[in-house]
Amino acid sequence: MSEISEIDVVDLRFPTSASLDGSDAMNPDPDYSAAYLIIGTDADDDLEGHGFVFTIGRGNDIETEAVRVIATTLIGRNVEAILDDMGGFWRELVHDSQLRWLGPEKGVSHMAIGAIVNAMWDLKAKRAGLPLWELLSALSRAEILDLIDFRYLSDFMTREDALAILERAAPGRAERIAQLRESGYMAYTTTPGWLGYSDEKLARLCREAIDEGFDQIKLKVGADRDDDIRRLSIAREICGPGFPIAIDANQHWDSAEAIDWIGDLARFDLRWVEEPTSPDDILAHAAIQRGIDPIPVATGEHCQNRIVFKQMLQADALRVMQIDATRVAGVNENIANLLLAAHAGVPVCPHAGGVGLCELVQHLSMFDFVAVSATMDERCIEFVDHLHEHFVTPVDVHDGRYWPPTAPGAGAEIHRGTLTDFAFPDGPEWRARETVAATA
Amino acid sequence: MSEISEIDVVDLRFPTSASLDGSDAMNPDPDYSAAYLIIGTDADDDLEGHGFVFTIGRGNDIETEAVRVIATTLIGRNVEAILDDMGGFWRELVHDSQLRWLGPEKGVSHMAIGAIVNAMWDLKAKRAGLPLWELLSALSRAEILDLIDFRYLSDFMTREDALAILERAAPGRAERIAQLRESGYMAYTTTPGWLGYSDEKLARLCREAIDEGFDQIKLKVGADRDDDIRRLSIAREICGPGFPIAIDANQHWDSAEAIDWIGDLARFDLRWVEEPTSPDDILAHAAIQRGIDPIPVATGEHCQNRIVFKQMLQADALRVMQIDATRVAGVNENIANLLLAAHAGVPVCPHAGGVGLCELVQHLSMFDFVAVSATMDERCIEFVDHLHEHFVTPVDVHDGRYWPPTAPGAGAEIHRGTLTDFAFPDGPEWRARETVAATA
Repeated sequence: MSEISEIDVVDLRFPTSASLDGSDAMNPDPDYSAAYLIIGTDADDDLEGHGFVFTIGRGNDIETEAVRVIATTLIGRNVEAILDDMGGFWRELVHDSQLRWLGPEKGVSHMAIGAIVNAMWDLKAKRAGLPLWELLSALSRAEILDLIDFRYLSDFMTREDALAILERAAPGRAERIAQLRESGYMAYTTTPGWLGYSDEKLARLCREAIDEGFDQIKLKVGADRDDDIRRLSIAREICGPGFPIAIDANQHWDSAEAIDWIGDLARFDLRWVEEPTSPDDILAHAAIQRGIDPIPVATGEHCQNRIVFKQMLQADALRVMQIDATRVAGVNENIANLLLAAHAGVPVCPHAGGVGLCELVQHLSMFDFVAVSATMDERCIEFVDHLHEHFVTPVDVHDGRYWPPTAPGAGAEIHRGTLTDFAFPDGPEWRARETVAATA
Repeated sequence: MSEISEIDVVDLRFPTSASLDGSDAMNPDPDYSAAYLIIGTDADDDLEGHGFVFTIGRGNDIETEAVRVIATTLIGRNVEAILDDMGGFWRELVHDSQLRWLGPEKGVSHMAIGAIVNAMWDLKAKRAGLPLWELLSALSRAEILDLIDFRYLSDFMTREDALAILERAAPGRAERIAQLRESGYMAYTTTPGWLGYSDEKLARLCREAIDEGFDQIKLKVGADRDDDIRRLSIAREICGPGFPIAIDANQHWDSAEAIDWIGDLARFDLRWVEEPTSPDDILAHAAIQRGIDPIPVATGEHCQNRIVFKQMLQADALRVMQIDATRVAGVNENIANLLLAAHAGVPVCPHAGGVGLCELVQHLSMFDFVAVSATMDERCIEFVDHLHEHFVTPVDVHDGRYWPPTAPGAGAEIHRGTLTDFAFPDGPEWRARETVAATA
């Protein structure tokens, strides 16, 4: 028996805007950040739960405060009671009758709950001595279903529907685990495609992506149509015909503009078109999907919760679901999202990059392969080669594949030195920049 | 020329849970609260801008911190430049390229921006010496349109469509202002209908509502079907046939359950069914509207932004739009919502109650009557008789009508004594409760 004894939060920011890494049509100069949480217990195992919300700079202080306020209410709670009923714990946080007014189930408060839920999953996996994907893959069907809140889903997928998916996936689990260990999970790379890069840098990074074994790349578009045509020409020439190239507009268009603009880019043979418009606009996504068929619409990194994903599927508004590890209320809600996608027969290709999103989300795709969709067809996980050095167990991506994590936990843990050095605004890395700016 | 010189925020909470005022199917014990903002300037007129976000208790600290963080960035800004371009100011805050990651346009960060925008409108109206509804009603058509961001709206309503609405409403403005002053705007009351009240209290409050001149009441439903039938029987008997009675399920149902449950209540002749399911679920609202036709579906108090309202209208998912003064990004976004409703021919009957929602939202309905929809047909503003005594210019509601405010400003200003007494957790009203609890 142990209790939650300590909550630490850090407003962690990396000065990525200096290099235009991560620049796109809506986010010209992000400072990749994390509202970072450590949950400590009084158990004598020294294990901690780590979790975070990824943000892109301003507002990370608000998110950190939200995590702190909600997590602090857990001090003194029995750890085993929580870890034994992660579905009940999720419901308790998400449906808190006063807190839910701040959403419900969206934005700052929902993401903060996600960090807390994920930190408890990290602790649960560490206690089990398993990487999260293996812990999840070892759950019984009833245990998986108990994690999920079917409220507001039942008009599309009932608990019985979800059970049928899990039952279909039951045979061959062991073989699929062996397959993951033998050949990994396909990665694709966005590293070449940021808007802020020169044509020369784009061309060089495309070549490097192919040399490194990636079988798909993605380019940011949407700021200037002529630029998009020029940059896609460069990428297509280097990658050659048939090589999958996806594009990402980061919400830049209204639906008619999207259809028209994509019409000009379709000749470059697009793997998918990502975030063409507002992430809240199910009907516009559906109109765009009709307008650009058969090119798939992909979206999800800003999808606020399972209820919006459900509607996207009901309306044929997306044909690639891009779950994000820290946008929704954690592992539980993303398992609901995986089941919704499987129920609709839509592939899940997670959003990653940022701070540690690769480290987290790989567990969900691998669990999906083992226990939910039971396939890797048309599926891949985004990879961006940023900031992995700050993680205690960074992703293992080589030969264009994610290789299954082996360390116990959810992959969220960042080095103590990084938490100190990049704390905002008082960490030495930020103080040094202030000094440089002041003397420039 | 003046500058923003001071930002004050208060975590203000009222212990309403003690009386079960405000209890409904999803919110059993709210403590009505406000994340309250005062913007001071260095002008010698001593005028301040007041604004707030209404919440129901836990999480008000998070919201207050969000308001503080974002508002503090305005220190030193030129006041006149902001007040002369409220559309540009709105875009600057809502589309901040880093901050938008926390939404975009939803939840804690979006509501915080709403409080700031509304505080600047309060200041603008005070400087003009006009109540907000009159200030807005005096704007030119171009000035109104410049307040609005048409991004993500254009597939339903373009700027030209909105202009046509305003042009249709141009004749008769003066007559409608005179009509408002002469006969007010219809109020309806939710005071009788909270779930936590006994049958006797319900009956007494229904009688009082009629005696006070109200022409519509609303009852909370959704927790227990038999209770709903019994309570509606009581209300219908006291109010008599034909008297409008609306019901409000506060998001309690999935769509099939909603249609079935409402089927059992339809014999009580329902004015509308409010919030039958998740506020995010456009498609479920549409299914419910089809299933309960011709009873109108009403929703909006949790509608996160204009993009979701737009889809609700596109999908015939609501037939009464219930804007909320502090859920979206302030006056600008609510003017977009009013225009969307007018474009669809749907009446707006605002959500109110809480802390000061009546004081704020009356300005928007009155502006709508003067300059947008140009009608009061099928329209009314919610009224709950709570907490008005804390406002410097409380609503004037009598004979079942809202009477137009005459004091300059947006109606948001709370007495200084209240801000001190009910500050959480250190104000004397809360300290006294702690003492009582400790000695009980």
